[in-house]
Amino acid sequence: MSTTLPMLETYPNPIELDRGKLAATIDTLDDCAEACTACAEACLGEPDVAELTMCIRTNLDCADVCASAARVLTRWTGYDASIGRAMLEACATACAVCAAECERHAAKHEHCRICAEACRRCEQSCRALLTEMS
Amino acid sequence: MSTTLPMLETYPNPIELDRGKLAATIDTLDDCAEACTACAEACLGEPDVAELTMCIRTNLDCADVCASAARVLTRWTGYDASIGRAMLEACATACAVCAAECERHAAKHEHCRICAEACRRCEQSCRALLTEMS
Amino acid sequence: MSTTLPMLETYPNPIELDRGKLAATIDTLDDCAEACTACAEACLGEPDVAELTMCIRTNLDCADVCASAARVLTRWTGYDASIGRAMLEACATACAVCAAECERHAAKHEHCRICAEACRRCEQSCRALLTEMS
Amino acid sequence: MSTTLPMLETYPNPIELDRGKLAATIDTLDDCAEACTACAEACLGEPDVAELTMCIRTNLDCADVCASAARVLTRWTGYDASIGRAMLEACATACAVCAAECERHAAKHEHCRICAEACRRCEQSCRALLTEMS
Repeated sequence: MSTTLPMLETYPNPIELDRGKLAATIDTLDDCAEACTACAEACLGEPDVAELTMCIRTNLDCADVCASAARVLTRWTGYDASIGRAMLEACATACAVCAAECERHAAKHEHCRICAEACRRCEQSCRALLTEMS
Repeated sequence: MSTTLPMLETYPNPIELDRGKLAATIDTLDDCAEACTACAEACLGEPDVAELTMCIRTNLDCADVCASAARVLTRWTGYDASIGRAMLEACATACAVCAAECERHAAKHEHCRICAEACRRCEQSCRALLTEMS
Repeated sequence: MSTTLPMLETYPNPIELDRGKLAATIDTLDDCAEACTACAEACLGEPDVAELTMCIRTNLDCADVCASAARVLTRWTGYDASIGRAMLEACATACAVCAAECERHAAKHEHCRICAEACRRCEQSCRALLTEMS
Repeated sequence: MSTTLPMLETYPNPIELDRGKLAATIDTLDDCAEACTACAEACLGEPDVAELTMCIRTNLDCADVCASAARVLTRWTGYDASIGRAMLEACATACAVCAAECERHAAKHEHCRICAEACRRCEQSCRALLTEMS
């Protein structure tokens, strides 16, 4: 029961995007950032942490990129779409890289499997919103 | 359908707190951070923005504190509870201040009303988890 | 006397970029994020805040993008340059937009003048590092 | 040559604290956040990463707490000192825990030695500002 859409619906300024789609992307970004932060933590607790260092790095990168993208999109009032678009591109990239890395460990580590799925959903959501804009 | 609890359930390390309660607090923190970021943006779009500057400031503060608290709690594996506890205290404070400020504008601005509720929920959730710990 | 370069010099992993240039870009990003956060706060205190709302928005966007870019670059160990590159592009965009907006108010507000300069320095630094990579 | 103090000097609103001391604390927080992010990255590259997982966790916590504290203090216009104070307390705690952990590895890892020093400086700076306030 996220408050993202109810909040976007109160914006006094026009938004050139469908508010439902924008809110859904923001929620997906927030969820992905959270999943990546959690996956890094879970990886740090594994006995084979030495084989998961690249996964931890991409998790941390992806969490930071998604979290700041969610904020930028929340301030989306269309004034200059270029920052939002650049962040959606950066996010789609980060999510793709992180998903690919997590997928390598998905058979062994459940947190990597769940996180890879969150990254793929987020990558798709970012690309769909980019299409919507153009 | 947040992935926070499913992720926490995969943590290989023990957590001294109930994972369901921890996950619920993290989700509430993430939601409050998002609501506060959105409320600041909505306030910036209002014709009476000059009367909302304090609200924008507390929104931004509360968003930053909640977002970093969510990350710290996601790394909660009990090693040293003092950072998590300090962040929960800071969050409860920030949420209380922000809720009080938003409530002053709630009759006039729907975004302040919704945001005040998100802050109150979050304040309560932080205090409940602090009680759980002691 | 930033510790960024001394820290990068201790990295056990190779970095394909010149560490001095990388550290300088990270410091410029951190400084720009700080300047933008401060400019938003200063704008909120101005009697003509209603004319500065777009400036506050771009300040907040630019601060978030620069802060997360600094973190991503700090984890630069070359594994997959695509996230770092995408964030440098997003940063160059955000800095250019924010600088242009701040420059509109630079004659009237000293904080906008200083912030515009910080954004221009950061934009240049990001573009220079992108050239270095290719 | 940080722009923090020049920016604080342009604030139209009064600040009840000495601007030089406030700017110095903000710079110390930003530097500590950067050092902790870098130390986590360096630890991930070490052959004995399995012994550094607690260090990585505290580094990440400390980086998040310091970064959000720097933002909150940058918005310090005295309206309600309680959020700023709570974040300074949380920061002093996080820095003390992180410094103690890094000191355990300082003889072996130069990045932990430098990071521990950054954390101790930051802890002191936060405590000094707290004293200033009371």
